[in-house]
Parts: sequence; structure tokens; C-alpha cells
Amino acid sequence: MPPREPGADLGGHSERSKYVQISRIPEATPGRRNVDPSDAINSKTPLDRLVGALTPSDLHYERSHAGVPELDPAKHRLLLHGMAQKQLVLTVDDLKAMPSVSRTVFIECTGNGWENWKKADENLTVQNTHGLVSTNEWTGVPLKFLIDLVGKDRGSTWMLAEGGDAAGVARSIPLTDEIMDEAFVAYGQNGEPLRPAHGFPIRLVMPGFEGNLNIKWLRRLKFGDQPWMTRWETARYTQLMANGKARQFQLRMDTNSVITQPSGTMQIRPGYNLITGLAWSGHGKIAKVEISTDGARSWKPAQLNTPVLPRAQARFQMNWVWDGKPTKIVSRSTDDKGNVQPDRKSFIDRMGTNALFHYNAQQTWSIDAAGRVRNVLA
Amino acid sequence: MPPREPGADLGGHSERSKYVQISRIPEATPGRRNVDPSDAINSKTPLDRLVGALTPSDLHYERSHAGVPELDPAKHRLLLHGMAQKQLVLTVDDLKAMPSVSRTVFIECTGNGWENWKKADENLTVQNTHGLVSTNEWTGVPLKFLIDLVGKDRGSTWMLAEGGDAAGVARSIPLTDEIMDEAFVAYGQNGEPLRPAHGFPIRLVMPGFEGNLNIKWLRRLKFGDQPWMTRWETARYTQLMANGKARQFQLRMDTNSVITQPSGTMQIRPGYNLITGLAWSGHGKIAKVEISTDGARSWKPAQLNTPVLPRAQARFQMNWVWDGKPTKIVSRSTDDKGNVQPDRKSFIDRMGTNALFHYNAQQTWSIDAAGRVRNVLA
Repeated sequence: MPPREPGADLGGHSERSKYVQISRIPEATPGRRNVDPSDAINSKTPLDRLVGALTPSDLHYERSHAGVPELDPAKHRLLLHGMAQKQLVLTVDDLKAMPSVSRTVFIECTGNGWENWKKADENLTVQNTHGLVSTNEWTGVPLKFLIDLVGKDRGSTWMLAEGGDAAGVARSIPLTDEIMDEAFVAYGQNGEPLRPAHGFPIRLVMPGFEGNLNIKWLRRLKFGDQPWMTRWETARYTQLMANGKARQFQLRMDTNSVITQPSGTMQIRPGYNLITGLAWSGHGKIAKVEISTDGARSWKPAQLNTPVLPRAQARFQMNWVWDGKPTKIVSRSTDDKGNVQPDRKSFIDRMGTNALFHYNAQQTWSIDAAGRVRNVLA
Repeated sequence: MPPREPGADLGGHSERSKYVQISRIPEATPGRRNVDPSDAINSKTPLDRLVGALTPSDLHYERSHAGVPELDPAKHRLLLHGMAQKQLVLTVDDLKAMPSVSRTVFIECTGNGWENWKKADENLTVQNTHGLVSTNEWTGVPLKFLIDLVGKDRGSTWMLAEGGDAAGVARSIPLTDEIMDEAFVAYGQNGEPLRPAHGFPIRLVMPGFEGNLNIKWLRRLKFGDQPWMTRWETARYTQLMANGKARQFQLRMDTNSVITQPSGTMQIRPGYNLITGLAWSGHGKIAKVEISTDGARSWKPAQLNTPVLPRAQARFQMNWVWDGKPTKIVSRSTDDKGNVQPDRKSFIDRMGTNALFHYNAQQTWSIDAAGRVRNVLA
């Protein structure tokens, strides 16, 4: 029965229902404060609780190397310098007065999926295995506009982007045509100012590229003719390959997908079940997602919800009638450049087991006779 | 200087910066509790503080007739009945297991803009004048899918949608092909469950049509062969025309636009200024926005940010160098069906001054020699 008494007063903000408990999972090394710069600290998006393609701003995943600074936007500056005709120091208001773009794109931590690289913990949820990727609408000033302002030298083919937190994360970014066209300095997130955890007052957004290149709390962009070889690209974000050599500058995020429903630790019943999940690729648009309900033996196309945006997560879905027998469900994405998400065996054959980043192998969920869904390797 | 000490710990949610004070303005008749069903009560979106095209969920405008109920999703039901082969009672989980669509669309209160119908208060901000429109990504089950489930009779050309709050808002909706294709029962808002103020656990979404048709806290859909003539469509949401007759069922929201920066009560300086704002149309996509900086004497095309989505707000912008002389700035939108936002005089000539709803005349902001921006009629 509908209530007979009026409900709550309208307020300045509409909060979540008390019936909706939804949050990220902050992760840190046990016993250590989770802002220790030497630790891997992050807070993962609850993909199993989300619908559609967007991530609410307060549930966008977090990854930081020295906690979350609270920067005063009135005092914050962006320095543009190096191999250019002039150097410029910009305020946040300067940036907000410039022409803007908005892009709904995913940002993904390069470590997303690493939990399944070496072994599978069957108690993991999809938030644990894949929660380091989120999709927001970001708004800001095109990198190209800023580059034109300072008059970058023709010989300047690299850019250093440095963050204004205590860790001072700094990455060298090649100034390819694609990056010049796509990157921007954002001050807006899902329609409002950035949240501190996501770079307030400004961050770099690099659609399709490693999360750590999307420098938060951005304080300077320096132009040069070679990479700076910062510790973030020599000691940290490199890949130890099977032959013992390290791969540097593996910058682009590959095509990926994961079934979010049903997923790890859920329970299903025989009969009709909706299978749904998210797919994304740093190369462009998702062109196709296929689903197997028999452990990757046969595949059927899933429906892709529209609009499918470039470098954004796309929602896919498929009807399925489960016969009650143990099985495994898997998704496989293909992007519009023809890149196909690899199965785990091909992925490991190619990358070995020393590496930590860019895991994009197909995710398998096993379902037992009781309908329990568990994380497995394949 | 960047901080030398680590910042705050990562948490379950990333909150707003203490430097960002952003909220809606709850409005109610002075001296009356703002949930009184006989009052117009609403809470307006701060358009002057937003960037991009999306509205954060907690800042989506609110309009309710009996406050905000907190419904238990486990107990809530949706009844489908009337002229159909069967009647069905669905749980929220039933709906979530059905095929879904996501649409990023505006919802607009039919009363948006009424403050400027008869006179202009020069102290109003754009939040006051136009804050009853917002754009979110909504996710749910296509109306067509539900209609196919119950097997609506061929002769059933209308649908009654009723809300489960204490007011029990109920509207008759014509089942045109367009509405059958576009409408859906939503459980998701910007990636997460609806917020209570926006209809939790489920609401109807009617892209392009009057906000009050997007029934919140939806409890039933009844199929029939004529409108039900509820008090919401006889006493309340009708238009008193100049000739004294009332117009009923003026359901579609027309093409509209407003400059949000600079806008009412802001202060600008001579020299370069960015003009930006939002445009939307219930008929389809925004095709063009023009801006006048000389009081509607001459017009220049504004840039439209991409992607421009159908029935969503589109961000527009234009560079402008203000010479410091008093002037007026105006925006004018055109949609892809050729509908042009009217100037105020044509609008009043057509609609008279008795009506209250569907005000979509061009919005003029005057700028005085001191750079003060004020709301004026034209």
C-alpha cells in the first residue's frame, strides 16, 4: 500500500536510499596505513552493483600513491613549459574560461585484473577482480588548445605530466596525433567539479591509456624531445616479461570485458537468468561481445546497449536459461579495430607470469550444481 | 607547492571537496511545510555551477506533491492491468532480470521557466529561472517489453501510470508508436539504483515529455481506450489560454536553451569571456544554437559539444570579447525537426499570460556597464 502520510522534505541534495548499501572496497597492505607511498592502495568500483554504463562519481575507483590531498583551487596553478615558445602559468579559472570538450570514457588502472594473473581465489567478487575501471563524463580543455597557446616546438615529441600530490607521480607521454587529439585537462566529472580523490581541481584525461597517465592534481606539463625516465616508468609501471627483460611504455589499455551478473559469490537458480556485463577497449569502440555458457566451447553474440561510445564501457546482455547443471560462463569482446580479448592460455603464453599489468584475459565464472558462482582461471 | 605529507586515506566513497559548495535550492510556499500536497514544492538544479551535459544524481531537480517516500524495494510491486490478456504483478527483482536499455535524457518540469512568464525579477539566477531540468543516464525495462508480456489489447490506446507516494500522482499517456518505442520503467540512475527523491525503487521515464509524466515510485500501469481524466490532467497540469479555454494534454517539452555562463547575478569583466549554456528539445536532437550579444539583433552560431544525444541537454559555447558597453545576451536553439525556440513576444502572442506551463521563450541576460548580469524579459 502507498503511504498515506507525506514523505520527507525536499533538500539541497537527494541522498541514497537507506535500502541501498553500495560502496567501494578500500584495499591496503594489512597493518600499514593505506597512504604509505610504497604500498599499492586502491578502492574498487562495485561493478556487481551497477547498472547502465556510467559510474557514480563517488564510486569511481581510486588509486593513489600518497593518499588524497585537499588542494585549494584558488591557489592551484598549471605550469606549461619546456620546449615551447613561451611558458605559461594558468589558474583553474583560466582553464574554465577556455573552450571545453566533454567525453564519456573509461579510466582503468593498469593493474586491473592482476588478482587472476597467477591464481584464482574462488571467493573473489567482480569488484575484487575487475573493480579498477570506471566510466565518467569528463569535461575540460583540449591538450591541443593548451599546446597551441604556448607554441610547442616542432621537435618536441614528448610531454611530462606531473601531479601535485605528495607522491608527485610523473609520466612521459608521447605526443602522437591521437593523443594530441584526444587528451584534455579536466576540471569536471559527471557534470560537477572533480572530486579530490579524482584529481580536484584538475587532472589529465588520456582516453584509452593507462590510468596512471591520467595524472591527478595536475601541476605541470613539460614539453621535450625524449621521455624523462621517471621512477614511475622505470621502477614501477614496467612489465617483467618471461625472458627476464622489462617492457616499458606499454601505454594503451587493451580490449576487455567481464560478466558482472551473475558473478563471483552470487547465487543463481535454474531457469531464466539475465547475463549482463561491461566491455571496453582503449583502441576505440566495442564492436562485439560474445558469451559462452559452456566454458568457452561455443559462443553466442550478446546484445550491446546503445549508444556505444569510443573508449567507454559498453553494457552487454543476453537471455539465458540455465538447466541446473554445473557449467562455466565467459565473455569475449572485440573492438572496432579488430582486437579480440584473448583467452587466458594465449595471454599467459604471450606475457608470461612475471608481469603485473595489462591483464585482459577472458574472465570465467564457474557455476556449481547448487547455483553458486565462483571465480576460476578458465 | 605540492604537499609533502600524504593526504587522506582512501574510503568507500569519494566525497566533494570542502572548496566546492554546490546544492539545489529547495523552494516552498513561505510558512508552509514544503511537503504540503497543495503547494508547489521543488528543488532546483544549480545549472550555473555545472559543466558538461550530465547532472549529478544528488543535484537532479526534484518536484514532488507529497514529499519523498522511502519505499522498501523488497515490498514494492508494479501492477500491469486493464485492457490486456492478463494482469501481472512484478517485483523490482523481476524487472532487473529483464532486458534493459540505458538512455541519457533530460527530464524537465513542465513549470520550468514560469518565473519569467509575467515579470522578470532581476535578482534571479539561472538556477531560479531554469533549474527544473536535468540530464541523467536512466536504465530500465522498455515499456514495449512489458506491454508484450501482458498482451495489451489492440484497442488499448492509452495507459494510466500511477505513483506510489501519498499524493498518488496519476497521468494518462497516449500509446503512440513513439512512446511505445521510447518509454521505459527505470530502476537505475547514473549507474546506480534510483535515489528516493527520483522515484526509488522504480519510475517511468518518458524521454522528451512533461516531467510529471515520468511517474516516480511507479506502482501501476493500466491499459485502456481513453484517458482517465485524473485531477492531475484536469485541475493541475492544464493551460489556461488567452481565450479563457483550458488546453489539456500538452505533453511534449519544446525546444529550449539558456546561457548558464555568464548568467543572472554574475559579474564579468571587459575583454575575453566564454559564453556557455545548455540546449534541449523533447522533439529530438539539438541541431543548432545561436547566440546574440546585441540583444537579439544579430546572431552567431555557437559550438555544440559532442556527442549531441537525442532528448538530452547539449552543451554549447562561444568565445566573446566584451567591449564593456551595456548589452544583452540571448541564446536560441533549433532542433533536428526544425523547431525554433521562440522569442518572448511571439511566445506571449501565442500563449497569452494566463498559462503557467511549457515556457520556452528565449532567455535574455542584460549586462550593465559595471559587468553585472541580470535577468530581464528581453
